[in-house]
Amino acid sequence: MPGNTFGHALRLTTAGESHGPGNVCILDGVPPGIPLTVEDFFEDLARRRPGQSKIVTQRKEPDEPEILSGVFEGKTTGTSLAILIRNADQRSKDYSEIKDLYRPGHADHSFDAKYGGRDYRGGGRSSARETNVRVAAGVVAKKILAEAFGARVVAYVKSVGEIEAHVPDPAAVTLAQVETLPDGEPNVVRCPDPEAAAAMVELIDSMRKDQDSVGGTAEIVATNVPAGLGEPVFDKIKADLAKALFSLPAVTGVEYGSGFSAARMRGSEHNDLFQPHPDGPPKIGAASNRHGGMLGGITSGQPIVLRCAIKPTSSLPREQATVNRAGEAATISTKGRHDPCLLPRFIPMAEAMVALTLADHYLRWRGQCGAAAG
Amino acid sequence: MPGNTFGHALRLTTAGESHGPGNVCILDGVPPGIPLTVEDFFEDLARRRPGQSKIVTQRKEPDEPEILSGVFEGKTTGTSLAILIRNADQRSKDYSEIKDLYRPGHADHSFDAKYGGRDYRGGGRSSARETNVRVAAGVVAKKILAEAFGARVVAYVKSVGEIEAHVPDPAAVTLAQVETLPDGEPNVVRCPDPEAAAAMVELIDSMRKDQDSVGGTAEIVATNVPAGLGEPVFDKIKADLAKALFSLPAVTGVEYGSGFSAARMRGSEHNDLFQPHPDGPPKIGAASNRHGGMLGGITSGQPIVLRCAIKPTSSLPREQATVNRAGEAATISTKGRHDPCLLPRFIPMAEAMVALTLADHYLRWRGQCGAAAG
Amino acid sequence: MPGNTFGHALRLTTAGESHGPGNVCILDGVPPGIPLTVEDFFEDLARRRPGQSKIVTQRKEPDEPEILSGVFEGKTTGTSLAILIRNADQRSKDYSEIKDLYRPGHADHSFDAKYGGRDYRGGGRSSARETNVRVAAGVVAKKILAEAFGARVVAYVKSVGEIEAHVPDPAAVTLAQVETLPDGEPNVVRCPDPEAAAAMVELIDSMRKDQDSVGGTAEIVATNVPAGLGEPVFDKIKADLAKALFSLPAVTGVEYGSGFSAARMRGSEHNDLFQPHPDGPPKIGAASNRHGGMLGGITSGQPIVLRCAIKPTSSLPREQATVNRAGEAATISTKGRHDPCLLPRFIPMAEAMVALTLADHYLRWRGQCGAAAG
Amino acid sequence: MPGNTFGHALRLTTAGESHGPGNVCILDGVPPGIPLTVEDFFEDLARRRPGQSKIVTQRKEPDEPEILSGVFEGKTTGTSLAILIRNADQRSKDYSEIKDLYRPGHADHSFDAKYGGRDYRGGGRSSARETNVRVAAGVVAKKILAEAFGARVVAYVKSVGEIEAHVPDPAAVTLAQVETLPDGEPNVVRCPDPEAAAAMVELIDSMRKDQDSVGGTAEIVATNVPAGLGEPVFDKIKADLAKALFSLPAVTGVEYGSGFSAARMRGSEHNDLFQPHPDGPPKIGAASNRHGGMLGGITSGQPIVLRCAIKPTSSLPREQATVNRAGEAATISTKGRHDPCLLPRFIPMAEAMVALTLADHYLRWRGQCGAAAG
Repeated sequence: MPGNTFGHALRLTTAGESHGPGNVCILDGVPPGIPLTVEDFFEDLARRRPGQSKIVTQRKEPDEPEILSGVFEGKTTGTSLAILIRNADQRSKDYSEIKDLYRPGHADHSFDAKYGGRDYRGGGRSSARETNVRVAAGVVAKKILAEAFGARVVAYVKSVGEIEAHVPDPAAVTLAQVETLPDGEPNVVRCPDPEAAAAMVELIDSMRKDQDSVGGTAEIVATNVPAGLGEPVFDKIKADLAKALFSLPAVTGVEYGSGFSAARMRGSEHNDLFQPHPDGPPKIGAASNRHGGMLGGITSGQPIVLRCAIKPTSSLPREQATVNRAGEAATISTKGRHDPCLLPRFIPMAEAMVALTLADHYLRWRGQCGAAAG
Repeated sequence: MPGNTFGHALRLTTAGESHGPGNVCILDGVPPGIPLTVEDFFEDLARRRPGQSKIVTQRKEPDEPEILSGVFEGKTTGTSLAILIRNADQRSKDYSEIKDLYRPGHADHSFDAKYGGRDYRGGGRSSARETNVRVAAGVVAKKILAEAFGARVVAYVKSVGEIEAHVPDPAAVTLAQVETLPDGEPNVVRCPDPEAAAAMVELIDSMRKDQDSVGGTAEIVATNVPAGLGEPVFDKIKADLAKALFSLPAVTGVEYGSGFSAARMRGSEHNDLFQPHPDGPPKIGAASNRHGGMLGGITSGQPIVLRCAIKPTSSLPREQATVNRAGEAATISTKGRHDPCLLPRFIPMAEAMVALTLADHYLRWRGQCGAAAG
Repeated sequence: MPGNTFGHALRLTTAGESHGPGNVCILDGVPPGIPLTVEDFFEDLARRRPGQSKIVTQRKEPDEPEILSGVFEGKTTGTSLAILIRNADQRSKDYSEIKDLYRPGHADHSFDAKYGGRDYRGGGRSSARETNVRVAAGVVAKKILAEAFGARVVAYVKSVGEIEAHVPDPAAVTLAQVETLPDGEPNVVRCPDPEAAAAMVELIDSMRKDQDSVGGTAEIVATNVPAGLGEPVFDKIKADLAKALFSLPAVTGVEYGSGFSAARMRGSEHNDLFQPHPDGPPKIGAASNRHGGMLGGITSGQPIVLRCAIKPTSSLPREQATVNRAGEAATISTKGRHDPCLLPRFIPMAEAMVALTLADHYLRWRGQCGAAAG
Repeated sequence: MPGNTFGHALRLTTAGESHGPGNVCILDGVPPGIPLTVEDFFEDLARRRPGQSKIVTQRKEPDEPEILSGVFEGKTTGTSLAILIRNADQRSKDYSEIKDLYRPGHADHSFDAKYGGRDYRGGGRSSARETNVRVAAGVVAKKILAEAFGARVVAYVKSVGEIEAHVPDPAAVTLAQVETLPDGEPNVVRCPDPEAAAAMVELIDSMRKDQDSVGGTAEIVATNVPAGLGEPVFDKIKADLAKALFSLPAVTGVEYGSGFSAARMRGSEHNDLFQPHPDGPPKIGAASNRHGGMLGGITSGQPIVLRCAIKPTSSLPREQATVNRAGEAATISTKGRHDPCLLPRFIPMAEAMVALTLADHYLRWRGQCGAAAG
């Protein structure tokens, strides 16, 4: 079973390498009649794109999507939707010298072990470039969720290195806060706490100057998702969301709600006590949301709150020890242009994967349980 | 798409509720010719079973598995393997009074929202009882991995509440250490650090007496897994392992290798530098294993190291505030017999899910890349 | 990818051999709230069962189904539904002598080639005994279709050997006609043309006396299925129905509507001309139904009409030439009790597979296109 | 579950409409290291292409494939392989007048019923144009089979209308015979019996002149496929091959081996008697091949022989009665350029689907049973 497909009722299949002709995705199972134009992809693709600001990589990737199928007269048709994003700024000469070297923190050796060879130009299939079509597909998923429930998915940077943002109410964070600072300037680091954001920019910039990189955490929040999405056993909504986030490059940990802090707590302090909901049943309220909007693998109606840890960029311009394909000790310094911190550009990717997962479960639930439930 | 199936080349489908006739699984795709008898299931089922020691629930569940198909003359046939474990000690009277109450921390309300009703006897499908057939299936997966690579999967309790075990080399922990203390007594908490184990037992026992519960973390290690398992994009091995662990009840976080600590690190301190391997190429070594045995979604040949956070048991004998199905405020105290800490019995479940995931990816890799790779 | 699962939104997974403990199925994705008791399975299981009449095999199989999960208080819960049917009359001594012989027309050698061995007791996994759980699952699928559309699926014997039934309007055939003759006697051959039925019984009986067997064709009709089920490309409804029927033992051909006769026709005589429907749009009528209720892979609203060819039973009590496992020439005569014609017992199997396929596509369509469509 | 994916271990996902920018496929699971260039697609695409001869449609479609990913330095990498074929000669003005009419024999109304609308330009997603990427993917499947077993798949026209070819040994038919007549001229109808071929050409040409169309049958033969491919129950090789062929447009019937003629036969005349194989065990021979190379859902080692019926082209230039979207009676005559007989261009499509199915089962078998089996 090959591994380039994600989802079941809403199913995304992708292909493409960083230095080939481009990346393409086929999103299958899209409900018919959803308004969609190529312009709808521009905003999120721009958020993911390299070269947006001084703290991200300066590679130029125009990321001009083309809808190849599945849209007719401005609406989805219900048949498979294909999106092609051609590669432009390939500069494969940057990578030719690492053809026989295994970059630390990368999958070069793992690819050779798996396939007996690899496309060594800039990571090939394992380059984060493949995420551009995920982000495009995520735009469609966001539309499905918005139309069905008025649901929205917003992600933001929670920490960079030791700098932690103060976000009193995750469910209240808006896309505007993530993208724009109170003074109207672009929020290049995508952290809704302006003070922390400023400190993060400074830290990332110092990393770049120091030929180093730094990790961080992102928080992803989905609001207005009704109770009832997810499956009780294997396809728990928390499990599918975790898979979605871990399928992104550089993610080393995922938690939801109380997450790892739950391991230190007592049941009597951890349980979120239910309480009557202002709208009355079948809705119920909760005094707190340590459960992150998911119980027993199924959404509870509370905001879904996830966090993930992102490792520091592995590609460094400084010299590092490694081995070559012959198994001999060697040194390497990555000449390509890389982000000193992956977090700012990770945000739209995380939103896309969370939206795709929730939209998939929405369609699965509608198929099994019909229109009456929810 | 229903959600009771896990895996692709090795595919586990399960059914069963805590208070119905029993749980059954169909494990499909098992290679033919693997020696297997019903006795092979006994050890891991005993490790998962309630009533093993004073620190776990005192429910009696005999967990006697029956192989319904897929084994002939002591070996797997290659056709679908079904295992049935009947329920015995059902005591459904314990649960009838909660029929119209939503237990805090449980999926009762989420089930009603999803399906318009639920089997209210002891959690029904969302009871952890369903994991017994996962553990049985995991035994087969462990055999596949052992035969293919001499690989083994061992899990253990890393922390309970604030008590953290000291485990200098995760890859060196043995099943014997997890199950038996140096003095030959059973290691009821399944922590390989004897001093921490003693403190954990004490803490869990105090929770029980206090009608409370406590969370913790587990660490899972797979050794002798070759480089090359996993897929570069969606079905990254880390993603599928995270889904596997998050599909287990009460898991609130998963990390691998450096995990969340990576978020605080610099690239220059985080990267594991490759070095020549004593066996020579195609194997390569690494000076450290902060990458937890996985790079770019593919195993690296280093030990696979995962951790997960388990929340404190939600069912508490003490009174808690909640609402009923009519949406009115109410109180509840769970009368059923529950574990004050889920960790000791979680260990074999985690091993099973990790083994199933790795065996699945092994067969997928063998299908695509054939015998020569790996 | 193992091959013991059928369907996507409604997904049937089975296990079991003819001479093991029994057969079990897990039907996943069943909508919640459908009334279901174990008695609902009795009628179709009785139609499939051996020993019903003198023209079928005299093996005794009680076929007592047990619902293991997925039903609570008389209704489906929406979680996975498991049904177990234990084997009773196994008589494995009948088969021990063919352990090292390859029966003509059977998969004995193919199993050895695939798996390196086989369960040689009565066909093991390739025995038609596995179809009992398919028939049970089909009962649930029929309920889903009846509840959704008032749709029903009826199959009947169209021909045995050279004897062809006259069925002027396939869509008008009732279950009562298939099961009972005009004189109130059981219609043991399940052909709705009483004259043909009598001749078929005579022919089959003569085959039995002659230690021989005979083939035939079955026709399957689904009525009240709305336009809109199926997918335009790979999962065409005709393709999934053909797979469903070909997945049954002994099926050597499948056609729908005009079928193979279309190959001899001109377009001007083959096209079914649309005409206004009495109910008005969106429904449309058709002057004829050579398209068998399916156009471009999607149902048209006309009755779905399929036919399949069933080969004569391969197991014969007379002596036949073959080879043994050592590759040497040998002779064999099958001592087990076998049907001289498979058609009468094939009917409920065909209905089950067609119902499962249609119910699957109904849930898939509801998931993608929602309640408004159809 | 969307329906634009075919296969499991070798998985083809497609998108595209007849009058959109183009068709694209992602073929996932391709073994690494297979030599592949864009030129490899030319021959089969040319066989499928319109405008090859006077008996097929005169539409001009250049069918220039572009490999977007999955090939590096002339070999497959093992990552997902994407192929794009842009549409060129779209002439959508031909179709605008049928926007509100339902063409007899087409899925126009079924699409409206399913999706609430459709791309009315030339069939949109249900146009046979989508098969061009299937044919391209089939080229890769043929390479996999050739490399693994020296297996090959050849299809040819067996009958057109009442004209039936005489093909004494299906397994001996070569691609050269299918493509070229004994006199060196192109075999435009793709029938290996030259006399029948000439009569077929004449018949098809007379249909064209008569503004009519005609059906026919195709035979597909796969040789050198070893015993052991396929699954005993649902994913029988005959079931998956039937689904593959029925997924192609205009197929109304599929049979294998003795097919529908088996329904008229006795077991004693139908059974193929096994006999020692010249190579010795584990191979065995058979005195005849009425079983078409498949027994119990698994290949037997004999040539695989399938036939399918193709209905006459539904689009006719002559006037036909129908209804419009408002449900009113109307007439229609299709102005687009269409084949008077679909068979000649169907041949490469059938080969592609059969090759994809067999290659999928080969990889599935290698995954489960490993290198030793077969």
